[in-house]
Amino acid sequence: MSNPERRPGTHMTAEIAEQPGILDALVARRAEFAEVAAAIARRPPRFVLLAARGSSDHAALYAKYLVEVLLGLPAGLVSPSTATLYGARPDLRDVLVVTVSQSGGSPDLIEVTEMARAQGALTVSVGNTPGSPLATAAELAVDIGAGTERAVAATKTYGATLMALYLLVDAVRGGKAEHAAGIGELARKALDSAGVDRAVDRYRFVDRVLTTGRGYSYATALEAALKLAETSYLAARAYSGADLLHGPVAAVNSETAVLAVTSAGKGGDAMHDVLAAVQGRGADVLAVGSAAERVPAAVRIDVPETVEELAPILEVLPLQRLALGLSLARGWDPDSPRGLLKVTRTR
Amino acid sequence: MSNPERRPGTHMTAEIAEQPGILDALVARRAEFAEVAAAIARRPPRFVLLAARGSSDHAALYAKYLVEVLLGLPAGLVSPSTATLYGARPDLRDVLVVTVSQSGGSPDLIEVTEMARAQGALTVSVGNTPGSPLATAAELAVDIGAGTERAVAATKTYGATLMALYLLVDAVRGGKAEHAAGIGELARKALDSAGVDRAVDRYRFVDRVLTTGRGYSYATALEAALKLAETSYLAARAYSGADLLHGPVAAVNSETAVLAVTSAGKGGDAMHDVLAAVQGRGADVLAVGSAAERVPAAVRIDVPETVEELAPILEVLPLQRLALGLSLARGWDPDSPRGLLKVTRTR
Repeated sequence: MSNPERRPGTHMTAEIAEQPGILDALVARRAEFAEVAAAIARRPPRFVLLAARGSSDHAALYAKYLVEVLLGLPAGLVSPSTATLYGARPDLRDVLVVTVSQSGGSPDLIEVTEMARAQGALTVSVGNTPGSPLATAAELAVDIGAGTERAVAATKTYGATLMALYLLVDAVRGGKAEHAAGIGELARKALDSAGVDRAVDRYRFVDRVLTTGRGYSYATALEAALKLAETSYLAARAYSGADLLHGPVAAVNSETAVLAVTSAGKGGDAMHDVLAAVQGRGADVLAVGSAAERVPAAVRIDVPETVEELAPILEVLPLQRLALGLSLARGWDPDSPRGLLKVTRTR
Repeated sequence: MSNPERRPGTHMTAEIAEQPGILDALVARRAEFAEVAAAIARRPPRFVLLAARGSSDHAALYAKYLVEVLLGLPAGLVSPSTATLYGARPDLRDVLVVTVSQSGGSPDLIEVTEMARAQGALTVSVGNTPGSPLATAAELAVDIGAGTERAVAATKTYGATLMALYLLVDAVRGGKAEHAAGIGELARKALDSAGVDRAVDRYRFVDRVLTTGRGYSYATALEAALKLAETSYLAARAYSGADLLHGPVAAVNSETAVLAVTSAGKGGDAMHDVLAAVQGRGADVLAVGSAAERVPAAVRIDVPETVEELAPILEVLPLQRLALGLSLARGWDPDSPRGLLKVTRTR
């Protein structure tokens, strides 16, 4: 970022494009995930807690759905501050605590991991920095293998984290990553989605953006809102489709762009009521996903279809391109958003 | 709402003002909470799950902090859709599942409760409608006793729900509601907070609003954002103070009003870094809470000090008045926000 010759968005552009290869490489490392899963099977958890911040928190939410649906285990997202600020020391026997952080350097997550181990939990870190303080603090570590990320806005580390969490959960249930075969090729198609350029054009001057999705795709809505806020400084808010109907829909009007994630499956099917509500209020809908063509929308970004639990890995790819494109169109440099550092150290 | 003579905001005004009496009445019913706690003690949980939508979800988050800090139990918020859309059937033995819904009529929460009972959980409903389908589906029921709520935007049911959840958790830990003595009087003072009228005046034309808090007060930030969105159609977003620094702070500029909840205690103390970051970016800060006077701010709304875990019950009161005042100043009727029904039926 110190190179004055670098064109805005060079890093983010390159890192978005690396993802198909990173995803395939992760699937090829299936045996490593099976090893971690075997270690987990020796201390079978009854509950799973996930701890993360920022983009990683959206990946953690995705993993929460995977754990509940595919593993049949109750799961929760940790509020690190209950441990770091208030000194909570819960009984964590039979609990698996998964921390998610690309840098592996966040002091609050390290503290949560140390507390969790002391309280009897089995701890796993998922990150992009082997040997990081977080990877060292946890008993088990998963390397997402995304390589150095130079852009401040996380893109390839987000995609790789989703993939790694899926492979971990799939291995714990005894799967062999069957559904993930060919994910790189699907990711390439998702990155080529028609509709991104048109969306950049249409939303060049948008001010009010709301993102929404249900089920697994809620994570995509959260990540899209964060990416738009980070790179284009948009006041984008994310709501689960259900929560949106419980109040915030009142703020939707004809000046609102609603980015709706609608992939084939139960989450996408449940979006029809949500779309009817926002369109009834005049919102301009951008539909993104493998079922985008099935809903009324001003602009559509199609994404290849896959099993629903893998859809978030593909959905986010054109949305990263959208954030990049809007940032450039608005004259910003998405590689170095104002006021952000690559590693945020919260306690 | 069918009375054409009713002045805008009549119901919301009255319902906000009822809260001191409702809070005292709840504390006076301490013995009922002790009974529910005794029933829970007969099946001691190892893990607590909370399920809710809308404002009640913010109350559930508050309760999650209480459970983790005061009870030392791991806790999580349920994503109802894992059960309702994806048919997840997790092993819930030794799990306490608490549903929070003022109406007690939300089909997704009823389904979650039925699933949870079948899967071995102990279920408790917290609501404002004794005999509701949700209260009937759960093994134990807590009545928040707030009386009929006519305004669509929840105010008194939110305050009463926080109080009931506190009393329940306090009873489970063997407390006698000592800290809640006199809460009604403190609530009266909080409702009289100077600063609300000035804030209504200053933010009459605001467009970009972001709310933030840490620890227990994060729930207040979430509820304030929802109330502003529902009643004044503001694109208000809430972030935990820690998450805000992980990205969204980039979208903060001198056109952004940041409503920061800063009460005495560890959560408020941890807000200093957050306030420095947003003020460094030119944001206009509205500080709300018992430690508001200790931080630099354009406008302050003081709230009486109490133990930190009770602060959210007081903090929200002037913020409800703020939402009401802004809605009226902008020419809306906060009793009947456009596009909202009192009971939202999501699945």
